[in-house]
Amino acid sequence: MRTLQLAAMLGAAIFIRDARADEGMWTFHDFPSAKVKAKYGFSPDQPWLDKARMSSARLAGICSASFVSDSGLVMTNHHCAHDCVAGLSSKEHDYVKDGFWAPKLEDEKKCPDLEVQQLDQITDVTQQVLKATAGKTGAAYTAALREASSAIEKPCQTANTVRCEVVNLYHGGQFMLYRYKRYTDVRVVGVPEFAIAFFGGDPDNFEFPRYDLDMSFVRAYENGKPASTPDHFGWSTTGPKDNELVFVSGDPGSTEREITAAERVFDRDVVAPILTQLRSEWRGELTQFMRENDEQKRIATEWQFYNENSLKAWKGRQAALGDDAMMRKQADAEATLRKQVPDAFDAIEKAHAKFKPLFRRYYILEKWSKGDLLNDAIRLVRAADERAVANGQRLDEYRDSALPDIEQKVMSTAAIYPAREKLALAFWLGKVREELGADDPTVRALLGKQSPMQVAERLVDGTKRGDQGERARLFKGGKAAVAASRDPMIAFVHLFDGAARKVRKINDDDVEGVTRAAHEKIAKARFALEGRSSYPDATFTPRLSYGAVKGYTSTAHGTKVAPFTYMGGAFDRATGQPPFDLPKSWLDAKRAVDPRTPFDVATTNDIIGGNSGSPMFDQNLQIVGLIFDGNIESLAGDFWYDEASNRAVAVTSAAILEALGKIYHADRLVQELRPAKGHK
Amino acid sequence: MRTLQLAAMLGAAIFIRDARADEGMWTFHDFPSAKVKAKYGFSPDQPWLDKARMSSARLAGICSASFVSDSGLVMTNHHCAHDCVAGLSSKEHDYVKDGFWAPKLEDEKKCPDLEVQQLDQITDVTQQVLKATAGKTGAAYTAALREASSAIEKPCQTANTVRCEVVNLYHGGQFMLYRYKRYTDVRVVGVPEFAIAFFGGDPDNFEFPRYDLDMSFVRAYENGKPASTPDHFGWSTTGPKDNELVFVSGDPGSTEREITAAERVFDRDVVAPILTQLRSEWRGELTQFMRENDEQKRIATEWQFYNENSLKAWKGRQAALGDDAMMRKQADAEATLRKQVPDAFDAIEKAHAKFKPLFRRYYILEKWSKGDLLNDAIRLVRAADERAVANGQRLDEYRDSALPDIEQKVMSTAAIYPAREKLALAFWLGKVREELGADDPTVRALLGKQSPMQVAERLVDGTKRGDQGERARLFKGGKAAVAASRDPMIAFVHLFDGAARKVRKINDDDVEGVTRAAHEKIAKARFALEGRSSYPDATFTPRLSYGAVKGYTSTAHGTKVAPFTYMGGAFDRATGQPPFDLPKSWLDAKRAVDPRTPFDVATTNDIIGGNSGSPMFDQNLQIVGLIFDGNIESLAGDFWYDEASNRAVAVTSAAILEALGKIYHADRLVQELRPAKGHK
Repeated sequence: MRTLQLAAMLGAAIFIRDARADEGMWTFHDFPSAKVKAKYGFSPDQPWLDKARMSSARLAGICSASFVSDSGLVMTNHHCAHDCVAGLSSKEHDYVKDGFWAPKLEDEKKCPDLEVQQLDQITDVTQQVLKATAGKTGAAYTAALREASSAIEKPCQTANTVRCEVVNLYHGGQFMLYRYKRYTDVRVVGVPEFAIAFFGGDPDNFEFPRYDLDMSFVRAYENGKPASTPDHFGWSTTGPKDNELVFVSGDPGSTEREITAAERVFDRDVVAPILTQLRSEWRGELTQFMRENDEQKRIATEWQFYNENSLKAWKGRQAALGDDAMMRKQADAEATLRKQVPDAFDAIEKAHAKFKPLFRRYYILEKWSKGDLLNDAIRLVRAADERAVANGQRLDEYRDSALPDIEQKVMSTAAIYPAREKLALAFWLGKVREELGADDPTVRALLGKQSPMQVAERLVDGTKRGDQGERARLFKGGKAAVAASRDPMIAFVHLFDGAARKVRKINDDDVEGVTRAAHEKIAKARFALEGRSSYPDATFTPRLSYGAVKGYTSTAHGTKVAPFTYMGGAFDRATGQPPFDLPKSWLDAKRAVDPRTPFDVATTNDIIGGNSGSPMFDQNLQIVGLIFDGNIESLAGDFWYDEASNRAVAVTSAAILEALGKIYHADRLVQELRPAKGHK
Repeated sequence: MRTLQLAAMLGAAIFIRDARADEGMWTFHDFPSAKVKAKYGFSPDQPWLDKARMSSARLAGICSASFVSDSGLVMTNHHCAHDCVAGLSSKEHDYVKDGFWAPKLEDEKKCPDLEVQQLDQITDVTQQVLKATAGKTGAAYTAALREASSAIEKPCQTANTVRCEVVNLYHGGQFMLYRYKRYTDVRVVGVPEFAIAFFGGDPDNFEFPRYDLDMSFVRAYENGKPASTPDHFGWSTTGPKDNELVFVSGDPGSTEREITAAERVFDRDVVAPILTQLRSEWRGELTQFMRENDEQKRIATEWQFYNENSLKAWKGRQAALGDDAMMRKQADAEATLRKQVPDAFDAIEKAHAKFKPLFRRYYILEKWSKGDLLNDAIRLVRAADERAVANGQRLDEYRDSALPDIEQKVMSTAAIYPAREKLALAFWLGKVREELGADDPTVRALLGKQSPMQVAERLVDGTKRGDQGERARLFKGGKAAVAASRDPMIAFVHLFDGAARKVRKINDDDVEGVTRAAHEKIAKARFALEGRSSYPDATFTPRLSYGAVKGYTSTAHGTKVAPFTYMGGAFDRATGQPPFDLPKSWLDAKRAVDPRTPFDVATTNDIIGGNSGSPMFDQNLQIVGLIFDGNIESLAGDFWYDEASNRAVAVTSAAILEALGKIYHADRLVQELRPAKGHK
């Protein structure tokens, strides 16, 4: 914390940041090449930045990725393709458990829900948006922003192969129109076994040293053929060296580094307790549910994976927010800015204070998952209701630009497991009763004289939601069709949707609307004070980070940690019991694998959830690694970055090649990746 | 919060307290009769206070209670006798489910683990103790306090019918020797069904309005006959009236109102997150475990009850600590005192900061339950190790005065349920791995190449702990016997006891030792500033509170709440499904019961966990109610008292009589309780 203390003492920083640290999730259009040059002696120029951007990709709504050949080959994490691979599996072939390697091009299997996107055009639309939102706050601000964004996106959205979105950067300080090229035909090329992709399971998640091969390869197709992708990264056979400068591109999802002290206190005192408690209890139910038999273990594994990952991330955030000295320091640091726009800070504080007693109700009614069946029923009911009003006045997720996503979800062919559905629904109903109280009219309507599990059983056994044609009919039929439906799950939505919408509206208008408008003011004041010398909070849009391979001292565990692990270490650590069991392919290949091959690596790159699958590359635009995690200290990265302990975690390009060649004998892939010349 | 703001603005309070509020868990020897007189016009005199004290009782280590006849009849809560009633049950007679009413004296059933205690002598020993601890801190302070207490208790402890203990009040400001008369032959007279005692279950727990008959009657015996108890409360047939002055005596367990801001921050940022997460996850596992079959439901119900109660209490504390404005106000309020003894405040802050990264490890290794079998194995191993060292140097719970308690636990005849044991043990092992990390040497020793559940199964199936004779042999045999034991559970303790003791020692010496010594200094400074005008934090010793029957506005739910519920309301609210199902006795008696009988009542009395079973009585020392809970707002009572919303919750004496007479036809009891004349 030495560097942070220094900054505070100098009184130089408005938000506490160390100008010399490898901090920042920078946009491609405002990248600090001079800073990189000063520290590392290399200055990325515009062609380099453009090439890096065009060689990067994202799996829409899920993960980051990169192009690694000129034939549409895309690299990402195993956990990013997990859903798809699970969907392709059957009783005969469990590709999650056993991995999958397409021997030939024609064996590559299509993933219906995967989409690859490439950012190919950036336009500054700040002035247009600010003009529309000027002087507005609350509900009016939210509506104005929605309408202005829709109006800007519309003319850009010329074809189905294109996605356009207005991106809000610096909390309203800058608005950019991002245009992406879409690849909607995506096929799996190869994935290893889950056991090695997630070796160490939840105990090792967000930890380092680490021994994971969390990779997958998919391919973008166009017109039924591998897409031509001249912009792609090269490949380093050796991987990165200690202290080497490395870059990471990708779509970090969300950070809260520019939020106010009042918002951090709200996160600490309200959000973190609720989320960690809900996820802990849900974890306990799933754990015991999965113990009961193998089938239940199979159907709940993915939910538990997601739940535990989110729980551990929130515990890390809570630990960061529980650093009271840091919290007070951050609060003190915003004093200068607060003097410029005191009203904006006050508005945020008041909005949150008012919402505090409602947050738990809001979160449970609106945000917590109710199982696939009820989630879809809500989508059907709301899609009908929302489409009946003007685009600019709808809930965000039902705007025209988002409706294809809703339709895709509602029409999903993913399997429904009644036992899992009942568990989720009963859990949610229990939480609704706990939060609203047994005497609340909504609770009485939902439960009547039954227990949560009795209601869940009645609904899950009674719904016809398994019938895709019926869903299509309801989605297309709109309000009339939904109103006429006799499906108990649909009728059930009407019992609580009013209460849910009521508290949602308070959140959207009185909290988010007010807070966003206030942040727009703060952003202006900040630009006036310090110029655009910083990077915006993460927004699930493409960013570029720089850093170096570096060991560290763990503040969480008090240990010194070296920057590399080696493939031999995985064999030493295996116990044979999940989650520390190596797959057969590894045990069989033990003698062939060079144990000194660098396996996973820790670097100072500033990343966050959403960066999963990000390429890590060197100055020559050669892949040296594949990001799949951060260490436990990096979870504080939501709120601040500390170069001393915050680490990104990647698989080295050397380990990927070693595994592809010697363990999986995926020669076709090895040839496609084989070291190309530098792309500078 | 109006009154609190006022106090802070006046700058009059060192800790924020409103002198006019019904605040305080007062000792019988320093009761503020003048304050009560000023507000309510009634001044308890010494004979009244003595009579109240001698009519009050406690169930040792469990609950509060009262004498309600001259023949040893004792009233307490159902949940205080739950354990005993469960133990008396069999497959043929489930007294928890069906209730139990002894038709005749000779049908009253003995509870082997219940003990009634009555505080009959109080001696000030402050000077003796302070002399022994003078100038000491850390481990030296802890040892000196232990030795001085043992030396004072020893000459008092003249017979087995007496228990003497030195009580630390005002965090080291006052030390009193309390002598209790012990009644060790305690028998159940009558309890209603669990379903009405805990009507509403966890959803209603800590809530009001409420409809619970949480009562039980037991009897103290001496020489095989009902004890003669001339000091006892009378009985009010009508119960209390709105705004009436009422008193509550009992043993509040623990409050933290005199702690420093640093300790509150530690509670908020470290303790509350861990405890609520652990209990939430454990709740989830138990919930699903109980769903699997009726037997598992039966054997886990009591654990879940305890777990959910503790979880809800901690959530309430966390919510209180999440009141950031209040936290800052409290921190500001201690400034005056801090100026007097800055070193003491600094010492507490530093000790907690240093312990922060260790607390989770400490809590999991030392405090979290590992199941009955492993808990007992730990007791056997530690009892042997500790008895080998001098009394003054042992861990607190193995001091000579506490060994009978350890022996009672180790020799318990309570049933062991292997499935439940495995669940608890696997849960604990999972948490140990989670906290210490998979690579920690202790974790490797505990798990080897097995999963937590595999280890749990091996130990539970392999232990001979079910054999009481073997336990006696190990307990009596000491170190040699324990070392020679081949029981896998005993051997297992040795694998982690070193790690557990290491972190326990850091807690005892560097945190508690330092903190207690610092608080002794703070207490002296506080007495010098404000005299002994306040009450000490709760310490599970007898206290007296005053207050009034009063409705309130719920800050948690935003509702206006009337002070009474009525028996008819229970029938209106019943759904037939747990936890809202009324027992058959109630449904059968519905027409006989007067629906307008006041059932439960809310009062401003300042109570906390430990007050369960406390008598509520009027100026004439007549029982008007039976405390069984506080409202959700009262959970903030750990840290501060707010008369506007903090409420104690009791069953009225009128409802008790109505139920005994018209539902349970317990005529023998009704006659014994029937209104005596005033006892003033």
